[in-house]
Amino acid sequence: MKTIAVIGLGLIGGSLALSCRKNNFVQKVLGIDESATHAEQALALHLVDEITDLTTACTQANLLVLAIPVDAMVKILPKILDLATPNLVITDVGSTKQAVLESIAHHPKRNQFVAAHPMAGTEFSGPSAAFDTLFQNKACIICNAADSNPEAVAQVEALFRNIGMHLIYMNAAEHDIHAAYISHISHISSFVLALTVLQKEKSDEAIFEMASGGFESTVRLAKSSAAMWTPIFLQNKNNILAVLDTYRHFLQQFYDAIAKTDAEKLNTLMQEANAIKPVLKRKFER
Amino acid sequence: MKTIAVIGLGLIGGSLALSCRKNNFVQKVLGIDESATHAEQALALHLVDEITDLTTACTQANLLVLAIPVDAMVKILPKILDLATPNLVITDVGSTKQAVLESIAHHPKRNQFVAAHPMAGTEFSGPSAAFDTLFQNKACIICNAADSNPEAVAQVEALFRNIGMHLIYMNAAEHDIHAAYISHISHISSFVLALTVLQKEKSDEAIFEMASGGFESTVRLAKSSAAMWTPIFLQNKNNILAVLDTYRHFLQQFYDAIAKTDAEKLNTLMQEANAIKPVLKRKFER
Repeated sequence: MKTIAVIGLGLIGGSLALSCRKNNFVQKVLGIDESATHAEQALALHLVDEITDLTTACTQANLLVLAIPVDAMVKILPKILDLATPNLVITDVGSTKQAVLESIAHHPKRNQFVAAHPMAGTEFSGPSAAFDTLFQNKACIICNAADSNPEAVAQVEALFRNIGMHLIYMNAAEHDIHAAYISHISHISSFVLALTVLQKEKSDEAIFEMASGGFESTVRLAKSSAAMWTPIFLQNKNNILAVLDTYRHFLQQFYDAIAKTDAEKLNTLMQEANAIKPVLKRKFER
Repeated sequence: MKTIAVIGLGLIGGSLALSCRKNNFVQKVLGIDESATHAEQALALHLVDEITDLTTACTQANLLVLAIPVDAMVKILPKILDLATPNLVITDVGSTKQAVLESIAHHPKRNQFVAAHPMAGTEFSGPSAAFDTLFQNKACIICNAADSNPEAVAQVEALFRNIGMHLIYMNAAEHDIHAAYISHISHISSFVLALTVLQKEKSDEAIFEMASGGFESTVRLAKSSAAMWTPIFLQNKNNILAVLDTYRHFLQQFYDAIAKTDAEKLNTLMQEANAIKPVLKRKFER
């Protein structure tokens, strides 16, 4: 009988618990959440079978998944490895990978941990946001697999494949750069857009009357949880600042072209940006 | 028998032609497009009944809709008014309203024109992007209605209501400010995001392997047509530069908070941005 323990019963942890039980990948799901309300909700929503404590999770589970903010992750992971029985396999779902791996780089049980990043999510959070198809047909990145026990890697691969993901392998440094471009900067641009329009709304209540689908799509990620994103931005600080420099460079090009009424430059910028079209088509319409 | 003439048979003009014929609001649709290919496509897709010329459109139609880029609009609208029979009602679908109204401010037939902005669109363009539910349940802004003949306003209201839109009234200056916040800045932030990630892709082909739904949503508008957006950004230059100043201010706040590892500031910024949540819920989930 295979038992999985999920630490953190929000959107990602809750969805993972639901998905892997639906497919009978596990028979029993233990859950832990530092919020008693979330723990109760997770039980009521049948995301987990039991709420438990860390020692029980580390001794009774075959597989443990960390689905908590990345600052909490680097604190708790060494303790979990301390408690882990020799057969426990541990993985995570965090959006940054270097910091979490550094936190256990010299731990004697380092090889029981497999660093993972399932690239799936919505702008909603908490147990009630969980659903069992969140991960289907999405990519999951496995980082620095060579530093983990091959059997542990195989179990983690089986978990993510079982919930419908395809696997990509890279090292943690490369992952964090890619995540800054593909995920973290999208969130910052959405948050900034929301703040910009909300400031205008203070003096002008009617502003959102005009909001259309384009605005909704671009601002959607601004609903995301601050508790989750603050530590991601800080752990991936250097990569994000570098990407923000590039972002500000192109923003300035738009600003200058508009200020100078330079139609040709604006046209060129947008035609270059249009090169995203075949990329998105290849990626999302295949 | 009511005949509508649509000038510009792309996404918006084509969708409008489809929608108002489907509902039997008009019996005949005349079409004009400066691209012979688009004109042929529009005929083949049954968006329009006939391709015609401007003189015929202005003398045979009851209602004429301008659905072309806003720089072309300000050039052609005075000519259309010159040609217009006394009963022809003219409207437009442009994303800026001050420039188009200035172009005919002193025209003797000014009151046959009703300025409109249906807030609907997708990131796709051309006749093949047209579909007949594009406008349903969206807002249409009517600007400076007091300067138009009341019967002309009534006909334009009937047109947009018939294709499923609700109407909002404001003056053109107010419209252009709102559009800068709600629509134009969303497009710029998407274009800039696309350029940022595409630059990285030049050295790193694997970057899009990791792209998830959040990235797709935020970058979607970067697929939009440069020919359509360049003149919008230039006609609404001053409003857009003012909004970009606010946008750059908040972007800098994120940059500084990350650079200073200021978790509290980052938390505050994101929690403030989260105020967009009830707004979007009210607007898009009602």
